Amino acid sequence: MNTPFPTSSSPGGESSVPHTTRRPADLSAHRNADPVWDALQEEAARAIQAEPILAAAMDETVLGQPSLEAAVAARIAGKLEGHGLTGAQLLRLLETAYLSDPAVGDALRCDLIAIKDRDPAADTYLDPLMFYKGFHALSAHRAAHFLWKQGRHTLARLLQSMISEAFAVDIHPAARFGCGILLDHATSFVAGETAIVEDNVSILHEVTLGGTGKEHGNRHPIVRSGVLIGAGAKILGRVEIGQGSRIGAGSVVLADVPEHVTVVGVPAEVVGRASSSEPSECMDHCSMMQSSDFEWGTGI
Amino acid sequence: MNTPFPTSSSPGGESSVPHTTRRPADLSAHRNADPVWDALQEEAARAIQAEPILAAAMDETVLGQPSLEAAVAARIAGKLEGHGLTGAQLLRLLETAYLSDPAVGDALRCDLIAIKDRDPAADTYLDPLMFYKGFHALSAHRAAHFLWKQGRHTLARLLQSMISEAFAVDIHPAARFGCGILLDHATSFVAGETAIVEDNVSILHEVTLGGTGKEHGNRHPIVRSGVLIGAGAKILGRVEIGQGSRIGAGSVVLADVPEHVTVVGVPAEVVGRASSSEPSECMDHCSMMQSSDFEWGTGI
Amino acid sequence: MNTPFPTSSSPGGESSVPHTTRRPADLSAHRNADPVWDALQEEAARAIQAEPILAAAMDETVLGQPSLEAAVAARIAGKLEGHGLTGAQLLRLLETAYLSDPAVGDALRCDLIAIKDRDPAADTYLDPLMFYKGFHALSAHRAAHFLWKQGRHTLARLLQSMISEAFAVDIHPAARFGCGILLDHATSFVAGETAIVEDNVSILHEVTLGGTGKEHGNRHPIVRSGVLIGAGAKILGRVEIGQGSRIGAGSVVLADVPEHVTVVGVPAEVVGRASSSEPSECMDHCSMMQSSDFEWGTGI
Amino acid sequence: MNTPFPTSSSPGGESSVPHTTRRPADLSAHRNADPVWDALQEEAARAIQAEPILAAAMDETVLGQPSLEAAVAARIAGKLEGHGLTGAQLLRLLETAYLSDPAVGDALRCDLIAIKDRDPAADTYLDPLMFYKGFHALSAHRAAHFLWKQGRHTLARLLQSMISEAFAVDIHPAARFGCGILLDHATSFVAGETAIVEDNVSILHEVTLGGTGKEHGNRHPIVRSGVLIGAGAKILGRVEIGQGSRIGAGSVVLADVPEHVTVVGVPAEVVGRASSSEPSECMDHCSMMQSSDFEWGTGI
Amino acid sequence: MNTPFPTSSSPGGESSVPHTTRRPADLSAHRNADPVWDALQEEAARAIQAEPILAAAMDETVLGQPSLEAAVAARIAGKLEGHGLTGAQLLRLLETAYLSDPAVGDALRCDLIAIKDRDPAADTYLDPLMFYKGFHALSAHRAAHFLWKQGRHTLARLLQSMISEAFAVDIHPAARFGCGILLDHATSFVAGETAIVEDNVSILHEVTLGGTGKEHGNRHPIVRSGVLIGAGAKILGRVEIGQGSRIGAGSVVLADVPEHVTVVGVPAEVVGRASSSEPSECMDHCSMMQSSDFEWGTGI
Amino acid sequence: MNTPFPTSSSPGGESSVPHTTRRPADLSAHRNADPVWDALQEEAARAIQAEPILAAAMDETVLGQPSLEAAVAARIAGKLEGHGLTGAQLLRLLETAYLSDPAVGDALRCDLIAIKDRDPAADTYLDPLMFYKGFHALSAHRAAHFLWKQGRHTLARLLQSMISEAFAVDIHPAARFGCGILLDHATSFVAGETAIVEDNVSILHEVTLGGTGKEHGNRHPIVRSGVLIGAGAKILGRVEIGQGSRIGAGSVVLADVPEHVTVVGVPAEVVGRASSSEPSECMDHCSMMQSSDFEWGTGI
Repeated sequence: MNTPFPTSSSPGGESSVPHTTRRPADLSAHRNADPVWDALQEEAARAIQAEPILAAAMDETVLGQPSLEAAVAARIAGKLEGHGLTGAQLLRLLETAYLSDPAVGDALRCDLIAIKDRDPAADTYLDPLMFYKGFHALSAHRAAHFLWKQGRHTLARLLQSMISEAFAVDIHPAARFGCGILLDHATSFVAGETAIVEDNVSILHEVTLGGTGKEHGNRHPIVRSGVLIGAGAKILGRVEIGQGSRIGAGSVVLADVPEHVTVVGVPAEVVGRASSSEPSECMDHCSMMQSSDFEWGTGI
Repeated sequence: MNTPFPTSSSPGGESSVPHTTRRPADLSAHRNADPVWDALQEEAARAIQAEPILAAAMDETVLGQPSLEAAVAARIAGKLEGHGLTGAQLLRLLETAYLSDPAVGDALRCDLIAIKDRDPAADTYLDPLMFYKGFHALSAHRAAHFLWKQGRHTLARLLQSMISEAFAVDIHPAARFGCGILLDHATSFVAGETAIVEDNVSILHEVTLGGTGKEHGNRHPIVRSGVLIGAGAKILGRVEIGQGSRIGAGSVVLADVPEHVTVVGVPAEVVGRASSSEPSECMDHCSMMQSSDFEWGTGI
Repeated sequence: MNTPFPTSSSPGGESSVPHTTRRPADLSAHRNADPVWDALQEEAARAIQAEPILAAAMDETVLGQPSLEAAVAARIAGKLEGHGLTGAQLLRLLETAYLSDPAVGDALRCDLIAIKDRDPAADTYLDPLMFYKGFHALSAHRAAHFLWKQGRHTLARLLQSMISEAFAVDIHPAARFGCGILLDHATSFVAGETAIVEDNVSILHEVTLGGTGKEHGNRHPIVRSGVLIGAGAKILGRVEIGQGSRIGAGSVVLADVPEHVTVVGVPAEVVGRASSSEPSECMDHCSMMQSSDFEWGTGI
Repeated sequence: MNTPFPTSSSPGGESSVPHTTRRPADLSAHRNADPVWDALQEEAARAIQAEPILAAAMDETVLGQPSLEAAVAARIAGKLEGHGLTGAQLLRLLETAYLSDPAVGDALRCDLIAIKDRDPAADTYLDPLMFYKGFHALSAHRAAHFLWKQGRHTLARLLQSMISEAFAVDIHPAARFGCGILLDHATSFVAGETAIVEDNVSILHEVTLGGTGKEHGNRHPIVRSGVLIGAGAKILGRVEIGQGSRIGAGSVVLADVPEHVTVVGVPAEVVGRASSSEPSECMDHCSMMQSSDFEWGTGI
Repeated sequence: MNTPFPTSSSPGGESSVPHTTRRPADLSAHRNADPVWDALQEEAARAIQAEPILAAAMDETVLGQPSLEAAVAARIAGKLEGHGLTGAQLLRLLETAYLSDPAVGDALRCDLIAIKDRDPAADTYLDPLMFYKGFHALSAHRAAHFLWKQGRHTLARLLQSMISEAFAVDIHPAARFGCGILLDHATSFVAGETAIVEDNVSILHEVTLGGTGKEHGNRHPIVRSGVLIGAGAKILGRVEIGQGSRIGAGSVVLADVPEHVTVVGVPAEVVGRASSSEPSECMDHCSMMQSSDFEWGTGI
Repeated sequence: MNTPFPTSSSPGGESSVPHTTRRPADLSAHRNADPVWDALQEEAARAIQAEPILAAAMDETVLGQPSLEAAVAARIAGKLEGHGLTGAQLLRLLETAYLSDPAVGDALRCDLIAIKDRDPAADTYLDPLMFYKGFHALSAHRAAHFLWKQGRHTLARLLQSMISEAFAVDIHPAARFGCGILLDHATSFVAGETAIVEDNVSILHEVTLGGTGKEHGNRHPIVRSGVLIGAGAKILGRVEIGQGSRIGAGSVVLADVPEHVTVVGVPAEVVGRASSSEPSECMDHCSMMQSSDFEWGTGI
C-alpha cells in the first residue's frame, strides 16, 4: 500500500447532491466478467434442488436478481425494513449506493471472496450472502457511508441505528473500511466515527475500535492491511495497528502496534512476530475486479 | 376499428419462455415523451406539500420511481403481497409484465387518462394511481394476462385470486381488455375466461361478464368499444354488445345488443338510441403514445 | 325534521386548519353519562370470561380505552393500517376526528344503538363495535368526511380508498350521513359525492346511491329519514327518497319516491304504503346524547 | 334425500364443552383411502416443477401437511390472521373443527370435487384449495358453524366478521350448508342465521339468502339439493327453493319455488322446467367418502 | 448525595394496584416549560426538510405527538411490538408508566441531555430519541421498573425479555437507575436484579453489573454518581464503585472501588486518580426539571 | 459420565433422509409422566389470572398446546419467522426435530429444570419458556443440530443465522450440547463447529468457544460436565475444560484446564480449587425423564 492514506474525518459537508433518491433505472452491474455472481447463481440453483423449502428465498435473493448489487440490496432491505424506512425505500437507497460507485460493488465481491477463503465453515459465496450477519452489517454500512459522504447525515445515522438493532453491530457511518473484510460472527462489533480499516482485515466478534474522551477530530484507531483482531479485543484512541499484525482475544490496546507482531493482554504487549505474513489472499482475487479506479485497492 | 378481432381463447400453450422471471435490469420506460408521468410527478410533489403525512407513500410510489411502469408495479405489489408471493416477487413479476411489452405501458397510461377524463371525482392522474381499486385491479390483471399468454397458468391464477381477495374484483387471466378502460368503484366486477372488452369502455361496479354452462370454448361476452355498462348489470353468454351502446343499471343481458342503443330491464330490452356517440376521448390522448404496434389499438 | 336541509356539495374550501394533525392530548369523551360505553365495558368483560382467547382483542379495543371514541379509533386503525398510512397515523387522525366534534361522537353511539335495535342477530353493542364491517366502514367514513370538510381532500380520498379496499364499501368523503344508520352486511355499498342520507336509515348490502353523467354538482340521491333500502337496490341521480319509504331488493330507482310508500322493480314503481311508520327508535335513544348542537339531529 | 330435514335454528345452547380449545395432538385424517388428498399432492409437486416460485406456498399448504384437513386449516389461517386472532390461534380452531367431526372433512373433499367437476376454469383440486375464495369462505364458515354449535357464539361471530372482511362473503355462523357446494366467484354472497342449503348446490356471486323484518326465528330461505342460483339473485324470507330448480341471474325471489323449474325476473316467475335434472355428479364421488354417519348426506 | 439510599430489593409485593392498565386519557406532560421537547420539534422539522423520506417517522414520533412522554412511548412501542404484546398494548403500558410519575418524565429528559452533552457523535436530542438503542433500552427498562414496583412481575419480565431480544440489552426490571445515564452503543449491557446505578453515569457496551452465586438478596453492584465504565468491563457481586471513578475497558472488578480513582486490569487495580472530577453536567440541566420530588435526584 | 464421549465432527454426510419435512401428524409427547409440562400449565393459568393482558401469549404458547415440544416450537417459530422461512415452515421443522427424537424432548425439559434451579431470578418453568433468549437460542440450535445430522446443512445454516440475528447467539449447527444447560443472559455467546458441551454446564453471556486458524477438523473446545463459565470468557482451540471447573469472567483460556479448579486471567491461570463440587442437580431431575436411550446422558 504505497499511496498516501487520506484520514480526514470530514466527508459530506461539500455535498451538492439533493437529498432525495430516485430509484436507479438500470440495475445491471455492467461488468465484463463476474465470476462471483456466476458462482452464486449455480450455488443457489443447487441449494434449491437440495432444499425446495429455500426456493422462495433463493429466488428472491439470487435467481431473480439482475446483478450482485441488486441481490445484496434485496437481502439487506428485507432484514432492515421497519422503524422509519420501508423495504422499498431501503431497496432504493441500497441499490443506489451499490450501483453508483463501482468500488462499492468491488468491495462486496471482495468481501465474499475473503469470507469463503478464510472461514472454514463457509464453502460457498452463498453462505455469507444469505446467512452471515457480519457481511450483512458491513454491506449495509457501505451504503450508510455512501450517504454520509453525500452529506445526508441523518439518513446515514438512521441506517446505522437499524444495523445496530438488527445485527448488534454498531459502525459509525463515517468510519471507512477497505476491501476483503471478514467480520466473523460479528455480534457487538463497534467502530467509531474516525476509525479506518484497510484491506484484507479479519475481525472477530465483540471487537471495539473506540475513541476516548469527548473531543471531536481523529480519535479512533487505524487498522492497517492484513491485520487479524481476536474476539473481544478493545482498541481505543487514535492508535495504529501495523500491517500484518495480530491482536489476541480479549486484549486491550491503548498504544500503537508495530507491523507483523502479535500482541496480547490487558493492556496488550508484544509477545512475538505474527505467525504468518499478512493474509493477502484477496489481492489475487481482486485482480479479477474490473473497475480500474477501485478506491480501496489504492489506499482506501 | 378495421382489423379483424382475434377471439381465440387459447393463448400461452405455445410458450417457450422458461417459467422463471429474472427481475428486469432496466426499469426505464424509454419513451420520447411521457406527459402522464411528468404530470404525476408534479401532482405528487404538490400532494406532499399539502399533506406531509403522505410523503412516504408519494415518495415510494411516484417520486422515487424511474418510470410509470415501475410506479404502478410498486403500488400494486404493496397491496397484493402475502398469501403465496412476497412483495419482492410481485414487484419483479409486475415490472417484467409492464416493461416487456410497450403496449401494456400504453394501456396503463390510457387508463389513467380515461379515468381522469370521465370520472368527475378524479381531477388528477394521481388519484387513480394511488387510490382507485378499479385501476389497481385492472392493472394487476394486465400482468396476470401477460403471464397467461406465456403459458404460466398457475401463477396467473394465483394472481387472479390475490386480486379477487384484495380488491373484490374477479377477472379470469385469459380475459382480454383494450385501452382506456374505466372500472368505476369496481367492487364485485366479474369477467370470465373468454370475455373480451375493447377500447374506451366504462364499467360500473357489480357488473358480470359471465358464461353459461360447463362447456369450454368461447362462452363469455364481447363488449365493443365505447360501451357504458351500468352498476349491477349481468351480461351472460357469448353475446356481443355493439359499439357505443349503453346497458342500464341492474339489467340482465342474454342476447346480442346492436350498436349505439340503450338497453334496460330483466331481461334487457332496447329502449332507445344511446344518448351520445361513443366516448372516444381516449383516441386523441392515445395518439401521444409512441409504440406503433399497440395491440389493443388495432382490435385488442 | 323541520329544519332546512343544507345540500351544498362544496365543504372544505374555506378551511383554515393547517394540514397537519397533532395527536389529541386528551382522549376523554367528557360526557356526563355514557350508557353505551358503560354497557360496552360490561359486555367486553363478560366476553373475556366466556372466551379467554378474546382477551387481547377486548383489552385493546374496549377495556384498555379511555372512551368510546378512542375505542372505535383503535378498532378501525387496526383494520385499515398499511398502504400509505401507518396504524399510529390512522389512530391519530381518527381520534382527532371523533373527539373534535361531539356530534361525531353522538353519531357513533347512535349508530351502535340503531344496529342493536334493528338487527336480530345483534344483541349487544359489542357485536357491531367489534365485528360489523358496516359500522367500521361508516365510522371510518365519518373521519374521512371530517377531513374533507377541513379541505384535506387528498387525505380524505386516501381514507376512502382504504375503506373500499378493506371493507368493500365505497363512500365518497363528501357524502353526508345522519345518525342512527344501519349498513347491514355492507358489502359493495356505494355512495357518491353529493349523496345525502338523513337520520335513522337502514341500508342493506349492494346498494348504490349513484350519479349520472360526467357533470359536477348535485347529482346523487337524497335519502330522507326512516327509509329502508333493500339489498342490491340502485338509486341513481339527484332523486329524493321520501321519509319513511321502502325500496325493494334489486330495484332500480330513477325518479323521486314519495313519503311512506314501498317501491319495487326495474325500474321501480310504487306498490303500496310502507308497512310501518318510520323506524324512529333511535330518536328515543338519542335523547340521552348530551351535545345540544348535534349537527345531524337538526338536519345533517 | 329421504330423511327428514332438521330445521331448528337453536344449536349450541346445550353446549357443555368448556370455551377453550387445545390444539389437536393428532392431525391425521385416519381415512382408509383419500383420493382427493393423494391427487392434491401430485398436483402440488407438478406445480412446483412448473413454477419454482410457488414452492414455499405449495410446501406450506400441501406438501408439508399431514392431511387435507390440516392443509385447508393452514391455507385459511394464513388468510384470516389478524384483527383479534393470531395465525396460530386460527390454525388451532380450524384444525379442531375439521378433525373433530369426520363429516366436516367429508364436506371439504366433497366441495373440492364439486368445484373441479362443475367449473370449467378449474381442472385440478389444487386450484380451489389454493385460489378460490368461495371455497376458503365456505370452509372457514364450516369452522364457525362448528363453534356456534358448541355455544361459542362470540368466537363464531368473530370468525364470521373475519370472513366477511377477507373474502367479502358474509354467512351467519348458524347457517347450515350441505356437501358439494360451489360458491363461484363468491364476492358479496350473504346468508342469514336460519338459512339452509342442502347438498350439491351451486351459487354464483352476489346471491343473498336473506331474512325479512326484525323478528327472530326461522326467517331465511331453504335451498334444496341440486339447485343452481344465478349471479345477483336475492332470495328473501322463509321460502323454499325446490330440488333441482334454477334461479335466474338478477332475480328476486319472495315465494316458494317448486322442484325442477326455472324462475327469473323481479319478482321471479316460473318460465319453464329446469333444463337438466339435478347436477348430482357429487353423489358418485361422495361414495368414496368413508364416514357412514355423514350428517349432510342424510339431510344436512 | 447526602440522602440515605434505599437498597431494598423487594418492591412490588405490597402492590394494591389492580393488574390492568387503562390507557391514560390525558397525554399532556403538564410542564411549565419543556425546552427539550421544544428543541426536538424544531430538530424534527429541520430533519424533514433535509430528508423528506423521514417525514413519516418524524411525524409519527415527534411532530404528531402531544408530549415527550408520548413520543418516547411511540418510538419504543414500534420497536418492541410482537411476541406477546401488540403495539397498542405496549403504547398503553409505556404511556402509563411515563405519565404516572413525573420523575420518569424527568429522567427521560435528563438522559437525552446527558447523551447530547457527552457523545461527540450526537449533536441533537433527536439523534438519541430516534436512533440510540441505549436510550431506547433504558427508557423501556424504566417502564418495566414501574411495572415491577407495582408488583406486576410477570409483565415486567416479559418487557425485559423484549428489550433483550430487540436491543441486546438485558436489565432486570428490579434494577434501579438514576438520571442522566448514557448507555453508549449499549450492545450486550447486562444488569442484575439488585444493581443500582446513581445519577450521571456513563456506561459503554458489553458492561456487566452481575451477581455471584445462587443466593437471593443484594448481590449486584452499586455504581455511585459520576462514574464512567469502559467497554467490556465486568463488575461482579455487591461491590461499590465510588463516586466519580473510572473503570477501564476490559477490566474485571470484584472488589469495592474508592471515589475518584481509575482502575484497570483483570482483576482491576487502582492505577491513578480519575483524570477529571465527576461528569456532573446533568446537574445543571436537571435544574430546569420541574418536579420537586424527583426521586432519583435525591438518591435514586 | 462413564461412557466414552464421541467427538467425531462429521455427522450428516451419511444421511438418507430426503430433504423435505412433512409436518408431524402426531404432536403428543407420549410420556408416562411429564411434571414439567404439568407445572407449566398451572403456571400459565396463574399468569393469566394475574395479568389478563398475557392471555393470548399464554394460550398460544402453553394452554392451547398438546405437548411441551409443541409449546417450545410455537414460541421459537414466532420469534424466528421471516428472512427465508415462514412461521409455518419453522413450526414444522421445529416440531419434527423435537418429536422425532425423545432425547431432544428430554433435553428441553432438563434445560428448563436447570434454569429454574440455578437462576435466582427464575422461580417458574414459565419464565425461561416464555422469556429467556438463552433457552430459546439453545432450543432452536437443538433443531438446527437435528437438521445438520440429517445432512441438511444449508437449512441448518439458515437456522443458525436466524438465531444469530434474533438472539445475538451464534452456535454452529454441528456443535453438540448435553442436557441441563443454562445460557444465562446469552447475548453474544459463540460456539464453533466442533465445540462440545457436556451435561449440566452453566455459561454466562459473551462467552466464546472458538477455533483457531483456517484448518478443518476438531479445533474448538470440549467443556466437560459441571463447568461454570463466567461472562466474557474466551476459550480458544481444541482445549478441554475439566469436569466441575470454573472459568472466571473475562478470562482467556488457551490451554487445557484440569478438573475441579478455578482459572482466571488473560491468559487464564489456575487460582484454586472450584469452590463447590459440580452442580449436578440435573442428574436427579433427569431421572424422571423416560427415554432410556437418552443420547446426551450416555455421552452426548
